[in-house]
Amino acid sequence: MVTTEQLREEPAHCCPDNGETLLDGDNAAVLADVFKALADPTRVRLLRYLADSANGTVCACHLPDALGITQPTLSFHMRKLHDAGLVEREQRGRWAHWSVNAAALDPIRSFLRLETPTGSTCC
Amino acid sequence: MVTTEQLREEPAHCCPDNGETLLDGDNAAVLADVFKALADPTRVRLLRYLADSANGTVCACHLPDALGITQPTLSFHMRKLHDAGLVEREQRGRWAHWSVNAAALDPIRSFLRLETPTGSTCC
Repeated sequence: MVTTEQLREEPAHCCPDNGETLLDGDNAAVLADVFKALADPTRVRLLRYLADSANGTVCACHLPDALGITQPTLSFHMRKLHDAGLVEREQRGRWAHWSVNAAALDPIRSFLRLETPTGSTCC
Repeated sequence: MVTTEQLREEPAHCCPDNGETLLDGDNAAVLADVFKALADPTRVRLLRYLADSANGTVCACHLPDALGITQPTLSFHMRKLHDAGLVEREQRGRWAHWSVNAAALDPIRSFLRLETPTGSTCC
Protein backbone atom coordinates (compact mmCIF):
# COMPACT_ATOMS: atom_id res chain seq x y z
CA MET A 1 0.00 0.00 0.00
CA VAL A 2 1.51 3.31 -1.04
CA THR A 3 0.80 6.17 1.33
CA THR A 4 0.47 9.83 0.49
CA GLU A 5 3.75 10.40 2.36
CA GLN A 6 5.58 7.95 0.14
CA LEU A 7 4.06 9.59 -2.89
CA ARG A 8 5.41 12.99 -1.86
CA GLU A 9 8.88 11.49 -1.58
CA GLU A 10 8.92 10.53 -5.26
CA PRO A 11 8.32 13.67 -7.29
CA ALA A 12 10.74 12.64 -10.01
CA HIS A 13 8.55 9.76 -11.10
CA CYS A 14 5.32 11.64 -11.11
CA CYS A 15 3.80 14.31 -13.33
CA PRO A 16 2.13 17.13 -11.39
CA ASP A 17 -1.63 17.23 -11.25
CA ASN A 18 -2.58 20.17 -13.42
CA GLY A 19 -6.06 20.44 -11.98
CA GLU A 20 -7.88 19.46 -15.14
CA THR A 21 -11.57 20.19 -15.12
CA LEU A 22 -13.63 17.13 -14.37
CA LEU A 23 -16.68 16.42 -16.49
CA ASP A 24 -19.67 16.81 -14.16
CA GLY A 25 -21.47 13.72 -12.98
CA ASP A 26 -24.80 14.44 -14.68
CA ASN A 27 -23.23 14.93 -18.09
CA ALA A 28 -21.10 11.84 -17.65
CA ALA A 29 -24.22 9.81 -16.76
CA VAL A 30 -26.08 11.04 -19.87
CA LEU A 31 -23.17 10.11 -22.11
CA ALA A 32 -22.74 6.72 -20.43
CA ASP A 33 -26.45 5.95 -20.96
CA VAL A 34 -26.15 6.53 -24.69
CA PHE A 35 -22.99 4.41 -24.88
CA LYS A 36 -24.81 1.69 -22.93
CA ALA A 37 -27.66 1.71 -25.43
CA LEU A 38 -25.08 1.00 -28.14
CA ALA A 39 -23.13 -1.60 -26.14
CA ASP A 40 -24.70 -4.58 -27.90
CA PRO A 41 -23.94 -5.99 -31.38
CA THR A 42 -27.62 -6.42 -32.28
CA ARG A 43 -28.40 -2.80 -31.42
CA VAL A 44 -25.36 -1.62 -33.38
CA ARG A 45 -26.63 -3.59 -36.40
CA LEU A 46 -30.19 -2.33 -35.96
CA LEU A 47 -29.11 1.29 -35.88
CA ARG A 48 -26.89 0.87 -38.95
CA TYR A 49 -29.69 -0.99 -40.78
CA LEU A 50 -32.23 1.76 -40.08
CA ALA A 51 -29.76 4.48 -41.05
CA ASP A 52 -28.93 2.75 -44.33
CA SER A 53 -32.53 2.14 -45.34
CA ALA A 54 -33.53 3.81 -48.59
CA ASN A 55 -36.44 5.65 -46.97
CA GLY A 56 -34.86 6.36 -43.61
CA THR A 57 -37.55 4.25 -42.00
CA VAL A 58 -38.10 0.51 -41.75
CA CYS A 59 -41.25 -1.43 -40.92
CA ALA A 60 -40.80 -3.56 -37.81
CA CYS A 61 -42.23 -6.49 -39.77
CA HIS A 62 -39.02 -6.79 -41.81
CA LEU A 63 -36.53 -6.47 -38.97
CA PRO A 64 -36.62 -9.97 -37.41
CA ASP A 65 -35.83 -11.66 -40.73
CA ALA A 66 -33.30 -9.00 -41.70
CA LEU A 67 -31.41 -9.32 -38.42
CA GLY A 68 -32.02 -13.04 -37.84
CA ILE A 69 -33.74 -12.43 -34.51
CA THR A 70 -37.17 -13.13 -33.05
CA GLN A 71 -39.89 -10.50 -32.64
CA PRO A 72 -39.50 -10.46 -28.81
CA THR A 73 -35.74 -9.97 -29.17
CA LEU A 74 -36.38 -7.15 -31.60
CA SER A 75 -38.82 -5.53 -29.17
CA PHE A 76 -36.29 -5.78 -26.34
CA HIS A 77 -33.54 -4.08 -28.32
CA MET A 78 -35.76 -1.44 -29.92
CA ARG A 79 -37.00 -0.49 -26.45
CA LYS A 80 -33.41 0.05 -25.30
CA LEU A 81 -32.68 2.22 -28.34
CA HIS A 82 -35.96 4.10 -27.94
CA ASP A 83 -35.43 4.72 -24.20
CA ALA A 84 -32.08 6.30 -25.07
CA GLY A 85 -33.79 8.49 -27.67
CA LEU A 86 -31.79 6.98 -30.52
CA VAL A 87 -34.76 5.84 -32.61
CA GLU A 88 -38.21 7.18 -33.34
CA ARG A 89 -41.37 5.12 -33.72
CA GLU A 90 -44.31 5.84 -35.97
CA GLN A 91 -47.35 3.60 -36.01
CA ARG A 92 -48.76 2.95 -39.48
CA GLY A 93 -51.73 0.62 -39.34
CA ARG A 94 -50.68 -2.61 -37.71
CA TRP A 95 -46.96 -1.99 -37.78
CA ALA A 96 -44.50 0.30 -36.09
CA HIS A 97 -42.02 1.97 -38.44
CA TRP A 98 -38.64 2.88 -37.02
CA SER A 99 -36.13 5.54 -37.95
CA VAL A 100 -32.88 6.81 -36.44
CA ASN A 101 -32.92 10.01 -34.41
CA ALA A 102 -29.42 11.03 -35.45
CA ALA A 103 -29.46 14.23 -33.37
CA ALA A 104 -29.51 12.10 -30.22
CA LEU A 105 -26.00 10.95 -31.13
CA ASP A 106 -24.62 14.51 -31.08
CA PRO A 107 -23.54 14.49 -27.40
CA ILE A 108 -21.41 11.36 -27.81
CA ARG A 109 -20.10 12.54 -31.19
CA SER A 110 -18.97 15.71 -29.48
CA PHE A 111 -17.47 13.80 -26.54
CA LEU A 112 -15.51 11.54 -28.90
CA ARG A 113 -13.76 14.51 -30.46
CA LEU A 114 -11.20 14.07 -27.73
CA GLU A 115 -8.11 16.04 -28.58
CA THR A 116 -5.01 15.08 -26.70
CA PRO A 117 -1.99 17.36 -26.60
CA THR A 118 1.14 16.28 -28.39
CA GLY A 119 4.75 17.14 -27.67
CA SER A 120 6.81 17.01 -24.53
CA THR A 121 5.62 15.34 -21.38
CA CYS A 122 6.38 16.56 -17.89
CA CYS A 123 8.83 13.88 -16.98
CA MET B 1 -49.29 -13.41 -33.06
CA VAL B 2 -49.07 -12.02 -36.58
CA THR B 3 -48.22 -14.60 -39.21
CA THR B 4 -46.32 -14.03 -42.43
CA GLU B 5 -49.58 -14.65 -44.29
CA GLN B 6 -51.31 -11.83 -42.42
CA LEU B 7 -48.36 -9.62 -43.14
CA ARG B 8 -48.64 -10.23 -46.87
CA GLU B 9 -52.28 -9.22 -46.73
CA GLU B 10 -51.39 -5.72 -45.48
CA PRO B 11 -49.04 -4.18 -48.00
CA ALA B 12 -50.57 -0.73 -47.65
CA HIS B 13 -49.35 -0.37 -44.10
CA CYS B 14 -45.86 -1.60 -44.72
CA CYS B 15 -42.79 -0.22 -46.46
CA PRO B 16 -41.00 -2.76 -48.66
CA ASP B 17 -37.79 -4.26 -47.40
CA ASN B 18 -35.11 -2.74 -49.59
CA GLY B 19 -32.54 -5.35 -48.73
CA GLU B 20 -30.20 -3.02 -46.90
CA THR B 21 -26.78 -4.44 -46.26
CA LEU B 22 -26.43 -5.72 -42.73
CA LEU B 23 -23.30 -4.84 -40.78
CA ASP B 24 -21.42 -8.09 -40.30
CA GLY B 25 -21.45 -9.69 -36.87
CA ASP B 26 -17.72 -9.39 -36.20
CA ASN B 27 -17.65 -5.65 -36.91
CA ALA B 28 -20.78 -5.13 -34.83
CA ALA B 29 -19.16 -6.99 -31.92
CA VAL B 30 -16.00 -4.85 -32.11
CA LEU B 31 -18.03 -1.64 -32.09
CA ALA B 32 -20.25 -2.88 -29.24
CA ASP B 33 -17.17 -3.72 -27.16
CA VAL B 34 -15.85 -0.16 -27.47
CA PHE B 35 -19.28 1.27 -26.62
CA LYS B 36 -19.42 -1.07 -23.61
CA ALA B 37 -16.06 0.22 -22.37
CA LEU B 38 -17.57 3.71 -22.40
CA ALA B 39 -20.91 2.70 -20.87
CA ASP B 40 -20.03 3.93 -17.39
CA PRO B 41 -19.94 7.50 -16.03
CA THR B 42 -16.61 7.01 -14.22
CA ARG B 43 -14.93 5.73 -17.39
CA VAL B 44 -16.40 8.62 -19.39
CA ARG B 45 -14.95 11.05 -16.84
CA LEU B 46 -11.59 9.28 -16.78
CA LEU B 47 -11.22 9.41 -20.54
CA ARG B 48 -12.17 13.08 -20.65
CA TYR B 49 -9.79 13.86 -17.77
CA LEU B 50 -6.86 12.14 -19.48
CA ALA B 51 -7.64 13.80 -22.81
CA ASP B 52 -7.80 17.24 -21.20
CA SER B 53 -4.57 16.89 -19.26
CA ALA B 54 -1.93 19.44 -20.16
CA ASN B 55 0.66 16.78 -20.97
CA GLY B 56 -1.66 14.20 -22.51
CA THR B 57 -0.69 11.83 -19.71
CA VAL B 58 -1.67 11.60 -16.05
CA CYS B 59 0.02 9.78 -13.21
CA ALA B 60 -2.26 7.15 -11.65
CA CYS B 61 -1.40 8.61 -8.26
CA HIS B 62 -3.53 11.70 -8.96
CA LEU B 63 -6.58 9.95 -10.39
CA PRO B 64 -8.34 8.66 -7.24
CA ASP B 65 -8.44 12.12 -5.65
CA ALA B 66 -9.29 13.81 -8.95
CA LEU B 67 -12.20 11.47 -9.61
CA GLY B 68 -13.25 10.91 -5.99
CA ILE B 69 -12.76 7.14 -6.23
CA THR B 70 -10.60 4.58 -4.49
CA GLN B 71 -7.45 3.06 -6.00
CA PRO B 72 -9.14 -0.36 -6.50
CA THR B 73 -12.07 1.33 -8.28
CA LEU B 74 -9.61 3.21 -10.46
CA SER B 75 -7.80 -0.03 -11.30
CA PHE B 76 -11.07 -1.72 -12.23
CA HIS B 77 -12.10 1.04 -14.62
CA MET B 78 -8.64 1.56 -16.13
CA ARG B 79 -8.49 -2.16 -16.87
CA LYS B 80 -11.78 -1.93 -18.77
CA LEU B 81 -10.52 1.05 -20.77
CA HIS B 82 -7.16 -0.63 -21.39
CA ASP B 83 -8.73 -3.93 -22.48
CA ALA B 84 -10.72 -1.98 -25.08
CA GLY B 85 -7.53 -0.32 -26.28
CA LEU B 86 -8.76 3.15 -25.33
CA VAL B 87 -5.88 4.05 -23.02
CA GLU B 88 -2.15 3.40 -22.97
CA ARG B 89 -0.07 2.71 -19.89
CA GLU B 90 3.53 3.67 -19.30
CA GLN B 91 5.33 2.70 -16.12
CA ARG B 92 7.55 5.44 -14.70
CA GLY B 93 9.21 4.33 -11.50
CA ARG B 94 6.55 3.37 -9.02
CA TRP B 95 3.62 4.78 -10.92
CA ALA B 96 1.71 4.02 -14.08
CA HIS B 97 1.04 7.00 -16.30
CA TRP B 98 -2.03 6.88 -18.48
CA SER B 99 -2.88 8.54 -21.78
CA VAL B 100 -5.76 8.26 -24.25
CA ASN B 101 -5.28 6.18 -27.40
CA ALA B 102 -7.52 8.38 -29.51
CA ALA B 103 -7.07 6.26 -32.65
CA ALA B 104 -8.96 3.42 -30.94
CA LEU B 105 -12.05 5.62 -31.05
CA ASP B 106 -11.95 5.90 -34.86
CA PRO B 107 -14.20 2.88 -35.56
CA ILE B 108 -17.03 4.21 -33.38
CA ARG B 109 -16.50 7.77 -34.63
CA SER B 110 -16.93 6.43 -38.15
CA PHE B 111 -19.97 4.36 -37.17
CA LEU B 112 -21.63 7.38 -35.57
CA ARG B 113 -21.47 9.32 -38.81
CA LEU B 114 -24.83 7.75 -39.58
CA GLU B 115 -26.44 9.57 -42.44
CA THR B 116 -30.13 9.01 -42.85
CA PRO B 117 -31.94 9.91 -46.06
CA THR B 118 -34.42 12.74 -45.99
CA GLY B 119 -37.48 13.32 -48.12
CA SER B 120 -40.43 11.17 -49.01
CA THR B 121 -41.14 7.88 -47.34
CA CYS B 122 -42.57 4.87 -49.08
CA CYS B 123 -45.99 5.03 -47.51
